[in-house]
Amino acid sequence: MLPAEDLVYVADSAYCPYGIRTPQEILERSIAMSEALFSMGVKLTVVACNTACSVALEELRTRFPLPIVGLEPAVKPAIGQTKSGKIAVIATPATVSGSRLKKLVQLHGGEVEVRLVAAPGWVDLVESGEIRGKAAREAVETLISPLLAEGVDTLVLGCTHYPFLRGVIDEITGSSVRVIDSGEAIARRTRDLLDWGAMRRNHGHKGALRILTTGDAAAMSDICSRLLGVQLKAEHLPV
Amino acid sequence: MLPAEDLVYVADSAYCPYGIRTPQEILERSIAMSEALFSMGVKLTVVACNTACSVALEELRTRFPLPIVGLEPAVKPAIGQTKSGKIAVIATPATVSGSRLKKLVQLHGGEVEVRLVAAPGWVDLVESGEIRGKAAREAVETLISPLLAEGVDTLVLGCTHYPFLRGVIDEITGSSVRVIDSGEAIARRTRDLLDWGAMRRNHGHKGALRILTTGDAAAMSDICSRLLGVQLKAEHLPV
Repeated sequence: MLPAEDLVYVADSAYCPYGIRTPQEILERSIAMSEALFSMGVKLTVVACNTACSVALEELRTRFPLPIVGLEPAVKPAIGQTKSGKIAVIATPATVSGSRLKKLVQLHGGEVEVRLVAAPGWVDLVESGEIRGKAAREAVETLISPLLAEGVDTLVLGCTHYPFLRGVIDEITGSSVRVIDSGEAIARRTRDLLDWGAMRRNHGHKGALRILTTGDAAAMSDICSRLLGVQLKAEHLPV
Repeated sequence: MLPAEDLVYVADSAYCPYGIRTPQEILERSIAMSEALFSMGVKLTVVACNTACSVALEELRTRFPLPIVGLEPAVKPAIGQTKSGKIAVIATPATVSGSRLKKLVQLHGGEVEVRLVAAPGWVDLVESGEIRGKAAREAVETLISPLLAEGVDTLVLGCTHYPFLRGVIDEITGSSVRVIDSGEAIARRTRDLLDWGAMRRNHGHKGALRILTTGDAAAMSDICSRLLGVQLKAEHLPV
């Protein structure tokens, strides 16, 4: 959606997963990541993590004088699209047990039956680049098959890691099940804000991707290359 | 902070207070108010209500391609300023019983003792323009005196109506107690976003204030004139 924009991606790998950390730690790390990005002169940030958004979004907006795009699980679009009246939101254990997702379901659920399903191992699969093998297939199948048997026809991917498992998910669900994540909505919101401020770069420049990690750069390079299917080189961010 | 900007204020008086409404109603009304504002060509909106922010903020950001400033009770600044280690957040019953305020306290509270205090009648006092008389004084005193006796030295006004009671609050608390609301932080965030997009009007123009209400325009004119101390004329918004 924004092919001419340069993108800096920061992975706080040294503190992953956020789901096991205290709100204070998550806030502290979110501020540190944001400071690193702002010191590089970015014009807008996306907090591309449901857990970090739930904890830190408003505080970041108070601290940094730039637009900050947040996200939440795509419960509403899923509810608008189900035909069977049964949807499932697949998320990290922390998101499933938190109040934010429950409030979303209460707000938009109506007559639709919404299953909230924790997917404990999925982030690790993605973080290790294991998105196509037997382990991924088994983990996805174990979780999704019972949902399909119950008549769920729409799956919400409620964690920003999960879209990388989309290939395996689609294999198992087939074309009869809709799979929805927040990616397009976030990209659209980002584009809208850039357009509002006449800050969108839309000339011929081909946007570059820069990848930073607070963890091991070589490991991150491998994983990103595997996930995105092109050769990529990550840099270490000492924060 | 933004003296050259024209301001349109919409009061959803016909549905006030939001605290007694369902999340679905609050979302519906927030969308209706936002649509009215956007159809007038505003360049940015502030959702100046804690209850509406808690329910509708992210959904509004998905629907409208403009910056939308939200707010939350100023718990963090209060915690940074207390010397006695005891603060109180005064808010509507709905905000006090909701999870959003509790999460804020959990996030920022630390060693500080935070009292959450519901102020059932305060919104009505402001809505009726009774911000200086005996009723206001009694309502404020009843609520605040016990807090002062307990050693609370910082009060957070956790509802956007309460700053209008500031005169009476200051009389009762004296200069030893800090009183904090979200107004300045919201104004600053608004200014920052306008500056980011080079959308701030900062030449000699004197900003106009337009007041709309979904309720009775004559009553609203009276109340606004009383609250702001200048003669104002509200218009009816049939939404």
